[in-house]
Amino acid sequence: MKFATLKSESEDGRLIVVSRDLKHAADASAVALNLQEAVRNWDSCVSQLRALYEQLNAGSLANAFAFDPKQCAAPLPRSPQWCDASAFLNHGRLMERAFNTAPIPDMDTIPLMYQGASDDFLGPHQDVPLPSESDGIDFEGEFGVIVGPVEMGATAEKAEQSIRLLVQINDWSLRVLGPREMRTGFGFLQAKPSCSFAPVAVTPDELGDAWREGRVQLRLHVAWNGERFGEPHGGEMNFSFGQLIAHAARTRRLSAGTIVGSGTVSNVERGAGSACIAERRVIEMIDQGKAETGFMKFGDRVQMVARFADGTAGPFGEIDQRVVEFSR
Amino acid sequence: MKFATLKSESEDGRLIVVSRDLKHAADASAVALNLQEAVRNWDSCVSQLRALYEQLNAGSLANAFAFDPKQCAAPLPRSPQWCDASAFLNHGRLMERAFNTAPIPDMDTIPLMYQGASDDFLGPHQDVPLPSESDGIDFEGEFGVIVGPVEMGATAEKAEQSIRLLVQINDWSLRVLGPREMRTGFGFLQAKPSCSFAPVAVTPDELGDAWREGRVQLRLHVAWNGERFGEPHGGEMNFSFGQLIAHAARTRRLSAGTIVGSGTVSNVERGAGSACIAERRVIEMIDQGKAETGFMKFGDRVQMVARFADGTAGPFGEIDQRVVEFSR
Repeated sequence: MKFATLKSESEDGRLIVVSRDLKHAADASAVALNLQEAVRNWDSCVSQLRALYEQLNAGSLANAFAFDPKQCAAPLPRSPQWCDASAFLNHGRLMERAFNTAPIPDMDTIPLMYQGASDDFLGPHQDVPLPSESDGIDFEGEFGVIVGPVEMGATAEKAEQSIRLLVQINDWSLRVLGPREMRTGFGFLQAKPSCSFAPVAVTPDELGDAWREGRVQLRLHVAWNGERFGEPHGGEMNFSFGQLIAHAARTRRLSAGTIVGSGTVSNVERGAGSACIAERRVIEMIDQGKAETGFMKFGDRVQMVARFADGTAGPFGEIDQRVVEFSR
Repeated sequence: MKFATLKSESEDGRLIVVSRDLKHAADASAVALNLQEAVRNWDSCVSQLRALYEQLNAGSLANAFAFDPKQCAAPLPRSPQWCDASAFLNHGRLMERAFNTAPIPDMDTIPLMYQGASDDFLGPHQDVPLPSESDGIDFEGEFGVIVGPVEMGATAEKAEQSIRLLVQINDWSLRVLGPREMRTGFGFLQAKPSCSFAPVAVTPDELGDAWREGRVQLRLHVAWNGERFGEPHGGEMNFSFGQLIAHAARTRRLSAGTIVGSGTVSNVERGAGSACIAERRVIEMIDQGKAETGFMKFGDRVQMVARFADGTAGPFGEIDQRVVEFSR
């Protein structure tokens, strides 16, 4: 199944189902007002939602309409919790060099994960208001999962069973603020403003063979101001989503609707490019002695879309956003 | 005004007003279903809530009932965001020695703050389920504020005006997990399970002269298994709550209902004792060469109550909890 959230007067938006080909949609709010409610009451509404989805795909819904991602909020405009990992160790190791921080000894056995704000996510085409170019504005293309309730201490296997939906995320980052916050040991706060989401959240079966080993096995194609920036592959994730969820649930239960992120998709193979500017910059430093690529300017645009191996667009739709100066 | 939240079928509970002397209460859900709704629609419901509060204090409400903190959830059982500072530098400096982490150079000019989970707060008398004594179970007594909406980039002065309510918090901490998470730079996640709250959230005017310079000027009396542990004074906070809120809002807007915490209340004057075990342990290490006090065991009890200068109980009511082993 594929779902999206239309902007509405409610902060949680209004639930729609989206056809397999992302061309059509239908209101689903009679089953669950919004996606948060659907995830919370999954067992009781999943069969009705699936029936609606099948009818939409069969073209037999009289009230279907054209799917317009520009009308969409994030699938969950707010969620109970947002825990973002850094599960691509290639990225983590490069960032250690970029930030000149001490190597983390157990990085390949214990997932890195920070707690982010989850009350104000941005939709796929919303402008991204930020206070200053001098904060080092960067994108971070990643994948994530929306889970049902997870018990404290759940195993990775049990945790993987809690996955309800997969999502595609741009975890906006302010690179000038990051290293100081890391050095305090308290983690990211100002360095991580509101995240953005591709319009469509999908059940894992929609990926077919590309959902394997608890990983999204798709390339994430990233373009900055219309130019190709990279298309790293999600399969190289060093921890599975089950392992990441279990890490988050070690000392707390997770409410239904909690989102767990992969961290920036990143591949050892250099030809894949990068899903964030900071990573390209550190590669430039390593290769050429200095970073040549600057961070984003107001007015800059970033596009992100996951694609199947044959190049066809993946199930999440596209993130296409502009960074703008926040003005009061 | 004084508010509390009765446990109910809704995850947000049901709003009650509590009398000035904490003896009586009355349902307020006809004005706002729950405290989150009251904070969100503050301007439109504040006069009705105040009228109800005055009638309750005057003894003229026919449907008033005895206030029973044991029926209470946290004032906000879940909130859009929880940003916890470490605004008592005495505590921060002692903890640097306890954790043997590098000194943070700008600690006295830029507040330390981490993002915590905000979807699952515990009420004042709820048992605290945790997975293992070997994680180093500790309490942290602190004060906090619940804000209305705050714009990105708000000044400290503007931010202070957004304060709707004051609260008293126990920020549960797992000390064995903390140092590793700090060293990664990603901040606390497993080290910070669900926080607990005293039952009553109050408007700043309820503190009279004890709300001054954006600080809660009360002593926080902490007892562990019935023995006095400390009563440090909240006035020694090195940043005002306005400054803390402004720090949180530097690159994001804050939704109404966001909670900002002071971090462990801590005084330079040793006679005041401590509001967390870790701090006592580091003082023991400094004074005697080793920490003698252990962390909490399952079955242990912690009580926390703020008191006015004359020793009378403060406005928040009491936290009185037991730590229990989480069992599936």
